[in-house]
Parts: sequence; C-alpha cells; structure tokens
Amino acid sequence: MNFVFDFDFHHAKAPRDMRDLLGGKGANLAEMTSVLKLPVPPGFTISTQACREYMHSGWIPQFDLEIDAALGRLEDKMKKRIGDPTNPLLVSVRSGAKFSMPGMMDTVLNLGLNDISVGGLHDQTQDERFAYDSYRRFIQMYGRIVLGVKGEVFDDLFDAAKDLASARSDSQVPTVLLSYLVNSYKEIVLRYVGAAFPQDPKEQLRGAIEAVFRSWNGERAIAYRQREGIPDDLGTAVNVQTMVFGNRDDNSGTGVGFTRNPSTGEALAYGDFLVNAQGEDVVAGVRNTEPLSAIAQRFPVIDKELREIFGRLERHYRDMCDTEFTIEQGKLWMLQTRVGKRTGLAALKMAVDMTNEPDIGLSREEAVLRITSEHLDQVLHPQFTTTEVEVIARGLGASPGAAVGKAYFSSEDVIAATQRGERAILVRKETSPEDVSGMLAAEGIVTSRGGLVSHAAVVARGWGKPAIVGVDSIHIIGRSFVANGFSVVEGDEISLNGTTGEVILGAVEVSVSEPSFEFEMILGWADDIRKGKVAVRTNADTAQDAANARKFGAEGIGLCRTEHMFLAEDRLPIVRRMILAETEADEADALEELRIAQRIDFREILLAMDTLPVTVRLLDPPLHEFLPDTEFLAIKEASIGLTEEEGRLYKAARAWREVNPMLGTRGVRLGVMKPGLYSMQVRALIEAARDLADNGFHPNVEIMIPLTVARAELELARSWVEDAISSEGDFGDVAISIGTMIETPRAAICANEIAQVAEFFSFGTNDLTQMTFGFSRDDVEGKMMATYIDQGLLPSNPFKSLDGDGVGELVRIGIAKGRQGRPSLKVGICGEHGGDPASIDILVDAGVDYVSCSPFRVPIARLAAAQAVLRHGVSDK
Amino acid sequence: MNFVFDFDFHHAKAPRDMRDLLGGKGANLAEMTSVLKLPVPPGFTISTQACREYMHSGWIPQFDLEIDAALGRLEDKMKKRIGDPTNPLLVSVRSGAKFSMPGMMDTVLNLGLNDISVGGLHDQTQDERFAYDSYRRFIQMYGRIVLGVKGEVFDDLFDAAKDLASARSDSQVPTVLLSYLVNSYKEIVLRYVGAAFPQDPKEQLRGAIEAVFRSWNGERAIAYRQREGIPDDLGTAVNVQTMVFGNRDDNSGTGVGFTRNPSTGEALAYGDFLVNAQGEDVVAGVRNTEPLSAIAQRFPVIDKELREIFGRLERHYRDMCDTEFTIEQGKLWMLQTRVGKRTGLAALKMAVDMTNEPDIGLSREEAVLRITSEHLDQVLHPQFTTTEVEVIARGLGASPGAAVGKAYFSSEDVIAATQRGERAILVRKETSPEDVSGMLAAEGIVTSRGGLVSHAAVVARGWGKPAIVGVDSIHIIGRSFVANGFSVVEGDEISLNGTTGEVILGAVEVSVSEPSFEFEMILGWADDIRKGKVAVRTNADTAQDAANARKFGAEGIGLCRTEHMFLAEDRLPIVRRMILAETEADEADALEELRIAQRIDFREILLAMDTLPVTVRLLDPPLHEFLPDTEFLAIKEASIGLTEEEGRLYKAARAWREVNPMLGTRGVRLGVMKPGLYSMQVRALIEAARDLADNGFHPNVEIMIPLTVARAELELARSWVEDAISSEGDFGDVAISIGTMIETPRAAICANEIAQVAEFFSFGTNDLTQMTFGFSRDDVEGKMMATYIDQGLLPSNPFKSLDGDGVGELVRIGIAKGRQGRPSLKVGICGEHGGDPASIDILVDAGVDYVSCSPFRVPIARLAAAQAVLRHGVSDK
Repeated sequence: MNFVFDFDFHHAKAPRDMRDLLGGKGANLAEMTSVLKLPVPPGFTISTQACREYMHSGWIPQFDLEIDAALGRLEDKMKKRIGDPTNPLLVSVRSGAKFSMPGMMDTVLNLGLNDISVGGLHDQTQDERFAYDSYRRFIQMYGRIVLGVKGEVFDDLFDAAKDLASARSDSQVPTVLLSYLVNSYKEIVLRYVGAAFPQDPKEQLRGAIEAVFRSWNGERAIAYRQREGIPDDLGTAVNVQTMVFGNRDDNSGTGVGFTRNPSTGEALAYGDFLVNAQGEDVVAGVRNTEPLSAIAQRFPVIDKELREIFGRLERHYRDMCDTEFTIEQGKLWMLQTRVGKRTGLAALKMAVDMTNEPDIGLSREEAVLRITSEHLDQVLHPQFTTTEVEVIARGLGASPGAAVGKAYFSSEDVIAATQRGERAILVRKETSPEDVSGMLAAEGIVTSRGGLVSHAAVVARGWGKPAIVGVDSIHIIGRSFVANGFSVVEGDEISLNGTTGEVILGAVEVSVSEPSFEFEMILGWADDIRKGKVAVRTNADTAQDAANARKFGAEGIGLCRTEHMFLAEDRLPIVRRMILAETEADEADALEELRIAQRIDFREILLAMDTLPVTVRLLDPPLHEFLPDTEFLAIKEASIGLTEEEGRLYKAARAWREVNPMLGTRGVRLGVMKPGLYSMQVRALIEAARDLADNGFHPNVEIMIPLTVARAELELARSWVEDAISSEGDFGDVAISIGTMIETPRAAICANEIAQVAEFFSFGTNDLTQMTFGFSRDDVEGKMMATYIDQGLLPSNPFKSLDGDGVGELVRIGIAKGRQGRPSLKVGICGEHGGDPASIDILVDAGVDYVSCSPFRVPIARLAAAQAVLRHGVSDK
Repeated sequence: MNFVFDFDFHHAKAPRDMRDLLGGKGANLAEMTSVLKLPVPPGFTISTQACREYMHSGWIPQFDLEIDAALGRLEDKMKKRIGDPTNPLLVSVRSGAKFSMPGMMDTVLNLGLNDISVGGLHDQTQDERFAYDSYRRFIQMYGRIVLGVKGEVFDDLFDAAKDLASARSDSQVPTVLLSYLVNSYKEIVLRYVGAAFPQDPKEQLRGAIEAVFRSWNGERAIAYRQREGIPDDLGTAVNVQTMVFGNRDDNSGTGVGFTRNPSTGEALAYGDFLVNAQGEDVVAGVRNTEPLSAIAQRFPVIDKELREIFGRLERHYRDMCDTEFTIEQGKLWMLQTRVGKRTGLAALKMAVDMTNEPDIGLSREEAVLRITSEHLDQVLHPQFTTTEVEVIARGLGASPGAAVGKAYFSSEDVIAATQRGERAILVRKETSPEDVSGMLAAEGIVTSRGGLVSHAAVVARGWGKPAIVGVDSIHIIGRSFVANGFSVVEGDEISLNGTTGEVILGAVEVSVSEPSFEFEMILGWADDIRKGKVAVRTNADTAQDAANARKFGAEGIGLCRTEHMFLAEDRLPIVRRMILAETEADEADALEELRIAQRIDFREILLAMDTLPVTVRLLDPPLHEFLPDTEFLAIKEASIGLTEEEGRLYKAARAWREVNPMLGTRGVRLGVMKPGLYSMQVRALIEAARDLADNGFHPNVEIMIPLTVARAELELARSWVEDAISSEGDFGDVAISIGTMIETPRAAICANEIAQVAEFFSFGTNDLTQMTFGFSRDDVEGKMMATYIDQGLLPSNPFKSLDGDGVGELVRIGIAKGRQGRPSLKVGICGEHGGDPASIDILVDAGVDYVSCSPFRVPIARLAAAQAVLRHGVSDK
C-alpha cells in the first residue's frame, strides 16, 4: 500500500496536513471522511507520489495491484461491482494537486458505464433516459479527455439530435435518440482513435487516471503553474469516488456553499443551489441557480444538516470553507471542501471576526497571517467590478489599481480634458519630467516603452496612480494607437488594470472602498508583531510623498533620491550650468545656487518626517541624464543647425555619454570626479536640519553614499561628508549618521571591510539585481524577460520578486559580513522589492532592520513584514 | 632593547630573514656583519617598528635611550666619540625599507661634523681640504633633507665659489673657499629655517632619523608604493653606520659590484669603480668610471679579497649579489649587499647555471621561482635599449614590446607606407574590423580611445604586436596629432613602449633577442611542475593564432570567440541579412550560408589544435555590433538621406540598440531570442569535427554557452546543442563536452545548480569584473580608473590584475559550489587575467584546472602557473 489510499485510511497524521501526498482535494476528502465523519461518497486517492513515479517511469505494475485492491474494497463497501450488468458501481475520476489549479486539469464522470452496465444503471434507477444520458455523457467526456477526440464532433452530433427532436433544451432529447447518440459516439471514437471505445471498466479507469497524470503537463497547466509560481515537479493526485447524482429527480439537487459570505465576510452561509441537476450545471450557468437559502424551503431537514456541517467545518478548519454538495433522492453528500477564496474586504472582516468567536478563537497572529497583499491591494485601490472585459493589450503592471478615462496623447491634452471635466488617461511612448503635470491630472498612465523603474512607473507608484508600462503591442501614431488589431483614437474611452497590466477597451465600472475598521485593526496587530524587529519606511523624494507615507504608517524615509530635485524645471538649467562650467568659479556659482534650492527641499522633507529617520542618497545618476539626447542634437545639427547654447550642450552631452551608463560614472564615482557636488548636497542638508533643530524640531538625518565598491572609496566619501558637517559647526540636537547603499556584488562580498566605515547599509536591490544577473532593466524587462518567464528559464521577473537564490544570497552574505565588520550595523533595503511581500519575506529572514517602499505600498509592507516575522521567528533587535 | 639593533646583534634567526623588522639594507648589513663576518663599518639599525611607532605616536623617550646606548657602544668599538674635537666619529644615516624603493627616501652622510669636530677630522686625516669639504657637504645635505632648505640655494653659492676660483671641477675649489662656504651655508640655514645649524651631534642624529621616518610618507615614496603595490603601513628602518671615505686619497676608492654580469648572466664579476671617490660620484656619473677589473691592476690584494667576498656572498645568498664597497686608504669595506636585479636574459642564464653549480645547488623549483613575467617579456618582445626617451603621452599598455615607425593615420596610408618599405605606426582614435589589414602591416598601434579589451587591444595582443590604447592626451586632427604640447605629423617617427604604455617622440633603438637555450629549459621545468595540476591554454579565434599558440606551448584553446568569424568582410553582409530577414525562410537561408562559412573556420582551428581541447564559445555580443552606428545614420538621414538598404539597416540598428548593451540581449540570451543561431553554429562545428575524424584526426571539442545566469537557461541551451549533435548522427571518435562561461555574479553564486548541467566552467573574469564592480570597461577604464588608482581607492586596475577580495571571492565560491554540484567539473578561466601572473596565482590557488590567455602570453602563463603550484602546494588533479 504505497500509492493508493482509501478516503478512510488511517494516516499517522491529520489528512488535511497531507496535501503534499494526497493533493488538496484528496486531503480534504479524507479529512471529511475519517476525521469529521461527514457523509462523503466513498472512494480512494492515488497519490502525487504515483504521478511523480509515472512521469519518471510510466505506468508500473504496482499501480494496477493497488488500484485493483482499492476498487475491490470500494465495491464491497458500496455493495456494487464496477461494470456489473444489474447493479453497477459508477465512479468519478478527478485530479487534485497540492495547490488548487482551477479548470487546469481534467475530470471524468460516470466511469464504469459500458454497453452492459448501462442496462444495470437503468435497472438500478428505473430510469432508462437517465441511464442512456449518463452513458452518452461518459463517452463524450472520456472521448474528449482521455482519448483526445475534439469536443466539437460530439457537440455537433448532439445539436443535430436536438434539431431532429425539435428540442429546446438538452433534457427534451428523447431516450431513443440518446441511445442512437451512444452508438454514434462510439463510432466517432472508433473513427478518430482507430480503436473501439473501451468496454472494460478497469481499462476505462486506467485510461482516466493516466489522462489526469498527463494533464499535469498539459499546456494550460504548465502556463498556470508558471504564472502562480507552483513547482513543476509536484505532480497531481487522482481521486476515484463513487458517483452520486443530483440529477436523479426533483428530490435531488446540487450546490456550491460557502460557510460565510466570501464577498462581504458576513457570517452567513452563502451559495448557489439547483434542484435536479449535476455540479456541472451550477458552474456552467445553463440554468438560473437559486440562493442557498432556497434549500430551507425545499429540504428543511437537509438544510439543518448542511448548516450543522458548515458549522463543524468552520470549527474544524478554523476558517471559512467552500464546499460542493449533492442531494441524491433526499440524501446529502459532501463532495468537496476547502478553505474558500474571498475578497479583501471579506478577508479582513473574517479575520477580525474570528478572533472574537470562541468556537474558532483565531489568534491575532493567525489573523494577520490570513491576509494577503492582494487583499490589501483590493481595499487600497479602486477595482473593476467585473472581469468580463475586452483586453486589447498587456504590459507591465507598474502601479496597481483601476483607472478609466478618455485616451489622450500629450500632457497638454490631458490637462485640457480634465479642465473640461473629463476623466483622462495619458498614453505616451515614455514619459519624462515634462509630462509630470499631465500625469498628475490623468486618472492613469500607459506607456508603450519602459520597465518597472521607468519614469512613468516610478512617478505613478509614488502617487498611487494606476499605470501600465512597456506595452510593446501598442503603436502610437499621432493622436491614436493601434494594439493587436484594435484602434483607439483621442477621446476614446479605455480602462487600465494597473495590477495585472491589462489595457481594456471601453469604460469598465470601478468600485472604490474606504479602508474598513478591520483594515486598521489588522494593520495595528501587524505593527505590534513587527515592532522592535522590522521597521517599514518609505521611498519619498518630496514633502508631499513623505506626508502621504506617514499617513500610511511609514516609520521614516529609507530612500530620498536627490536627483529628482535636480530635474525640476527651475533646477535643470542650473544643473546644466554646473556641468558646462569652464572655470572652477562658474562651477562653484552653480553649485551654490543648487545648494540654496536643495536646502528648501530638504527642509520640507525633514519637517514632514520630523523625529523619524530620513535617509538621503547623494546624487546617483550619470550626468548625461541632465543633458539633452545626443542623437536628437546630432540630427538637428545636420539639418537646421544648433544654437550656440545647444552646441555647448551637445559637446557636454557627448563628453559625458557612456556606452553602458548603468555601469559608468554614477553614484560615488560622480562624487570622486566632481568633488564639490557631494559637499554641496551635504551642506544643504545639514543647514536644513540645523534650521529645523533651531526651531524646536528633531531632524534625524542619514546620509547615504550610492554605488560603493570598496572601503577606501567610502572612506573618502565619508571624509567629504564629515568635512561638510564640521564646516557647518555645532548644531545641537541633530542626529546624523553616514552609511552606504550596497548595490554592487562587490560591496556585498566585501561588506565586512565596508561596514567598518559605514553606520548603516541599505541594499539597493534594483541595481544589485541588474549586476548580479547582468540584466539591464531598460533592455531586458520587455520582450526578453517575457520570453524567459514563458520558457520557464526564470521563475519570475527578478525585478518584481527578489531572486532568493542569487541576489538573496548576496544580501545574506552582505548582512552577515557587514555585521561581522560592525556588530551595530543598521541594515535596510530600499529597492522596489521593499514593497513586494515575497521579497520582504526573504529580506526579513535575511535579517534586515527595515524595508522601504513607495508610500502606497507601506500598508502592504507592514503586513508582509509582520508575516515574515511570524514565519521566521525573528527576534527583537 | 626593542627598537635599535647593532649590526652584530645576536638575533634568534638569520638577520637576512628579518627584513620586516630591519628593512632590506639593515638585514643584509647584519647578515654580512654577524653571519658572514665581512668587513662592514660598524653601526646599528633603528627598526621599522620604531618608524611605525613614530608615525603613530611621534618621537618617544625610549628612542633616545636606545639610540644613545647604541651610539655609546659604537663609539667604544670605533674608539672615537661623535663630535669629538680631536678624534670625531662620523656616521651615515640611511633609510632601508623592507622592499627596495630606490631613490625614494633620504640619506645623510658625514653626520657628526660641527664647528669643533671639523678640526678633529682635519687632525685625524691631516687633510684640511677634506675636512672642510666634508663639513660643507654635510651642511648642504642636512640642510636640504632634514631642514627642508631648497638644494639650489646651496648649489648656486657653490657655483659662485667655483667661478671665483676659476675652478673647472669641484675638486679645484680651494680649502679657504670651502671654509667660507661652510660659513655661508650655515647662514643660509639660519635665514631659511630661522634657527642655527645644529652643532650638537645627537640633535643632528635625531633630526636625520626623523627625516628618514618622515620620508616614508613623502610624495615620491607614496607614489612609488602605489605603483609597486607596497603597503603604506610597513614603515622604513634607519641605518646609522660609521663613515668610511673612498675619497681620502689615491689609495682609496669606491665601487658598485655585481657577483655576475646582470645583463648577460655570465658568471664573471661585473661593476664600476672609481679611485679617490665617494659612492655618490659613481652613481652621479660626474666622472668616467673604470670597470671592476681595473681593481686588479691597482689593488691586487684587495681584488683577491673582493672576489673571495663575492664568492662567499653568492654561496651564502645562493644568488647573484649587488654590492657597494669602499676602499679607504687600502682597506676594503663592504657598505651594502642585496640580491641584484638582472635582465631577463641574465635571469634565465643564472637560474639554469646555478642548478649546475654544486656550491649553490639551486633546485629546478627554485630556478623556476626566480624568473618573473617581466624577465620573460624582455626575452619575448623587442625592447628599447635605452630609457633616456622623450615620453610625449601615456596610455594603457595593451600589448607589450617596443615598436618604432613613422606615424600614419589610416589603414590605407600604413599599407602604402609599408609597401614603400617604411616602418609604420598606425595612429587612430579607435580601430574597427576595417582597420585590420593596416594593423597587420603596422609595427605597432596607438589609439586615443578604448580600453584593454577594445578592438585594437584584443587584435594586437593576439598578434603579439605592440599597442597602446586609450591615450586620452592625444588629439588627432586630420593627418597629425598633438599631445601635451608636442605635435606629430604624418611621417614623423615615433616609438611605442607597449609594456609601459609610453608614446615616445623619435626613433628609439630596439633590441630583439632570440629565446635562449635557458628559456626553453626553464619553461620545460615549469611545465614539469604544473603538468597534471594546471594546464595552460590559449584564446585563439583563427587557425594562425592557434598554431602560433601551440608553438608557445599552449595545451588547447580555452576560448575561441566565434563573433570574429562574423565580422570578416565577406561574412558581415550575410550576418546583416540574417538580422534583417523578414521571413523565417530568409533567416534560414542566411544562417545556412553562415554555417558553411563557419564550418571552414572551425575545421582549420580544430586541425591546428588536433588532439588538444578546443573550447568554442557560441555567439556572444549583442546583434547591434554587426549593424552600423545609429547616430551616423541619423545624421546622414537628416542631411543627405539614406539608401533603401541603409534605411533597413537603420531600422534594425534602432530596434536592436540597447541602453546598456553590456547587460542586454547577448550571450545565451541571444540564443533564446534567435533560436536558430546556436544550432547553426553547433552544426557547423560538429560537421567540421566529423570531417576531421573521418580523415584520421582527433578533434576534441568543448562547446561553451556564454552569459548563463540560471540552470534552466543552460538546460535549454544544452538541449539545442544536444539536438544539433544528435541530428548530425553518429560520428565516431570526436570528443565533445558542453559547458558554460561563468561571468555573471549570479552564475558564480548558483554554481552548484548550474554545474549539474555543465561539464565544464570557464570563468569569464572580464565580464565578471565588470558586473561585480558595476564597472563598464568602455566607460571607466580611462580617466575614472586613473583617478581611482591615483587616489588609492583601488590598489590596481581590476581588469589587469584580478580583484582577489571581490571577484576572486566569487571565483572561489563558484568553484567550490560548482564542484559540489558536479565533483568531476573541469574549471578554467579565459578572461584577460589568464595571462597576468598575479591573477594566475589567485586563480590557481582557487583551484582552476587551466588558465587560458592570448598566444604571446602563453610562456608567461606556463611560468606563472608553475610558480603558483609551488607557492600553494597544489596537488595532482
């Protein structure tokens, strides 16, 4: 007895905990049968181990031995024999993997019917029509799923029979035509398969089991697993279960029941029910279902039994359950149960409610662990109310939520439209700082180029505004675009799902929910769990972002990028003057102007975050980012010529142009090549802090050097910072520390050395991912990344979800070596991964002191950090 | 007694092994005194520990105590007192660090003279002129070195005295004027220093010792240490030694003697000698020296004594020694000895000879360890015969050796010039495949742009042709260039030192030596040492390179780049057709043509390396490298317009253009995006191998996938290779293995996974360095790298010498994890570092099975690998 387990097999531990072996469905069927003693049609499970064995070695004789034995026991239990001419046993064969893969794998019903046993079913049920309809359905299902005959050839013939009988519904097809259909279906099988439809029920059973095994590696299943990150080598279990028929008569029926309302979380049973129907009929929606409450009128005894069962399930699973059940001639059978999916709203309400219900007695920790980031996303962002939408293109979901509006193709047009009172979507190839006012006015943003750290993506996320970037299939032509054959012109309504990256034709209805009482409650509990262990900060470059993030619960700024301060319309000309400066005096003048401007920015940000730490990263991007595009100027020079000013900019842009700017003169290297720059920034920052301190505030400043590769480099940068600080003299109650980004692999590997001159590390996991993989986001995140993920070369986009094996290992090495170099080292992370729950889990486990993410991800990070603390048993710092 | 040691102090171990504490000079003085009992003027050494203490805490009282005591012992021994009015002791004070830093630190002679003791010296020597000249020299030397007075003010006054006396040489200045000079020198000191010249000999001594200590941190010394990689914290020792005078009379003299000829290695004493002179006079070259053999005539007894000492030194040091000696009134004094520097030719000859001399009895291992890569370089490449050259610019020494010729600025002009019989140097901003014929015709190549892996650098190294790249200071204007104020026009003669990166004005004489008998002998011994432990392969892309490398001893090809096969003039149009193909059929046609062309290339290479392994790397560079420059075409389009063909190329070039091509769609990623490409290459390779096997040859093929980041990716690439192999059917005796480059940090970190599907690894340390540091060579290797090294932020250019702490650690991790994943994994390295001895040392220690380098570096790699095997005790594989 290795591969096959009866539902009532006595396992050494609770079956519900054996999903690895029995699959989810099998585990719950065994739990209901052997632990809860619920009325479950008997059957057995062929384990996932058998599937793995099959994938490796094909069908082995032991399968036959064990399945025969299990079938014999089932026959004895049911007092029916499979294929019996008078009292046949019929079974269903269903897949059931460890993780639910809805609709991805196959099911065969009514197995055991053949030319002889169909008469036995007639005898048993005294219903000839039912017997032939069941056989007809079985051949069709088995033909399609096990034998690979296209479904349409059966459907076409059935439609012909309906026409012949002038039947308006399937149930009006007369028995005699059903028996003809049985014969012609068998002929179809013979013709398409080249062999007769198998009459031996054991051959049928083996065929169905093999089909389920094979369906694990079906295209749909593989694609689904890739999307959901389910490993390919788990395999699926197969459940063979005695058939019960909800479509026997009007004393029968079938339904899907939730123990509470999965939309609202209300503690009332909820579901759909159909009299005289099979499960398929409920799901297919061919007849209008009745609400679950209808059972009370029609089957009062069963209603009571069902509610009692729901109660037991909830108490047993300590959660809301989703069930399938069938009533066969007045008897209730439970066919399936599992912990049910739910909306964000419902998840929050249930989690909080269940902590107050003594029967369930959920702990706060358990309640926190039950909430997913998707649940919070739903509550935080507008959502579409329907999934029936016309998706015309897909891109990278860069900023979550739903947005609807008319398409406009320039920032000016968006502003004009919103001033007319319209809702507008900004559609651009890519965005630049000049588009910022249009982006602010728009409901959402789509770009045909760019990755998850493109300008559009970063800005939109900062504002919590839905955005989709890198939509390759969109071709913008003037004031219109085409995408996969659809055409959208200016003013046409489109909708964006910033969570999934779908661009949708037309206006889809959107719902907005206010964060509920339970939302605050759960996040409060999450905070209690992680406080003193992992902090959550935000990435914010402006006072507004900082204030916003603080509202969302941010405990400081983990990354304040100063380059955005350089790109503002009134700053860029000064920055360019600094770059173009031909004398030291000119350069000093420009730096002085920038210092005064930055001082104001810093003051506002420090004020917004007063008392909380603010990590300011000194200038990071290569200087050519502040200069115009060389190709544009080259063309202009060759055609209409350049002004003198443009000529100078062109020369500078060429001088600073780099072959691989990502690996060029940026970060601290820029500081080394332009020594006045960092001093200027530090002085502006210190002056702002001192000014606040003088006015009774408590600024808490962390100065961060980007792109360090070596200890000596950080030592030098540190000396500039310290010189600038000491040149500002005494300034009382200002907390200042100096640290570095760890974003090159070398910095992680040499972290022990670097930590000796750094008070804190902040892992820049974006760049660390770029360098560890050798992936330029700008270049690989579109088509190449999609191909890599489609082909299973990478489990997921490592820029969205941290690569635990590679980049994660460097983070672990960096933290371990860093703390070896300086035990008191504070360690954070400020890449995009700081807002991704799976990444947060890896990072918290690796030992970070805080994560930092965009303002709108702060609640999700608070939750995810708490969950990681619970999962990994992180201790107080 | 902690800081000061008399030369005859009884140390616990041999003084020569105490260079850490005593410095090189001090250790050898003690060795000569206490072990060899040679006639060394007595004295004592103030240890490097004292210098370190001084740098940390300044002068401490214990120094005075110990120095006073040592001085007292010296006075007793010499029976003279320092500063004595009748019989004064004079001493020299010389620096002596662990590593020789010639001319970098300071020396004071004749210390102990003052207004009183100068009379004592007169009494002692009965030579008033000598006494005042010595005092005059002492004030001048002490004034300059210890007190910081500029040397010119003394020199100017001395010149005035010479004019006054109408003296033609220093020795003609009369005594009376020397006594005036003493007075005026003291006045100079008073005026410039603000204090009188110190009369107290102990004050003089302390001043001189402190000056030596301080000179350790002088600018010249720091710069020298940076260049030579000597740690800054070692400090220097100070040697205080009784003065002896070779300039006493004609029965005195001084010389520099080598125990054998340092130029040729001939086993005959060699050196320079001057009668009646001080050491400075020999070095300064103010008088013509006589050969050492002159001593035999003049001082036959001393000649015998000296030769006997030379013999003892050689037997004792078991090596050629370099000595300084002085004869004072017929008595020989040894002032210094050390193991002498030598030319490559001499090094080889001495190493081999000494294994045959029973007195010295060098083992072969010791002989191998005595040869440096510079020695071999000198023997392998033409060298300048003089160092007196006019360096007009410096760049990166990309390919070693000396070249002389007339400057030409285009490939055509170089070819025309060589056809006229001229020697030509090609001077270009950068080179491209179109320049190849001109490069081949030129004696050497200079480019103003590019790094050590630029086209010019890689091609020149492959041919062993001298090249200098990235000479920033050269500005090419038409058919001339200017550099640091010098101007060179077409046809002007220039010389290149490809070893040092110096561009020299005019034609410098060059010597070429044929590898000697000893060269072959030493390399043979080196091979015996490393065989079975570390192999040496070559990077070769053509049959000619392969044949060349085999001559130099390469044991296979570690890297055959296939992209060079794509860039040939007849191939590029086909490659472009493949890229531009609009249908699959067009693409397949182009690939087919390439396959036939590549098959020929592969056949030639495999034939040239028959029986030895040939590692073929499938196509690596991004496709846009095969397309024209977009900016060029953009300008052309905007001005005179594009042809239809150009228009298509422009479109393709734009489509394939990348922001960071280094981190873009290249290597295996290209294979994933263009699946037919790798199959084509593998088929061409397999067909070539089969063809050879069919003709009785023994091709040994290793197929290498570049830029792998994940196991699944290599699995996929492997499947293409295996499919292509199996589609070729059976082909008998062809050895084929499949492996991957490890050149992304992730591949190193995840090597255990990757090794499970790779039979071999080859570390691509160029790219690994780029990604580990985040350094794009194209962008950082010029000005930025120079600044980083100048400022001490990096110890050296990590592209030239492997970064042991960062990149080296990743290599160690990669090898350890790789062998964990597959114990039989073969590991090599094929970056530029494979030809650099320091890098080879790190890599052999890390456990590589082979290193691979350019053909002309193979002998150096053979030697360096053997040395690393000896140093690290590598065991058989």
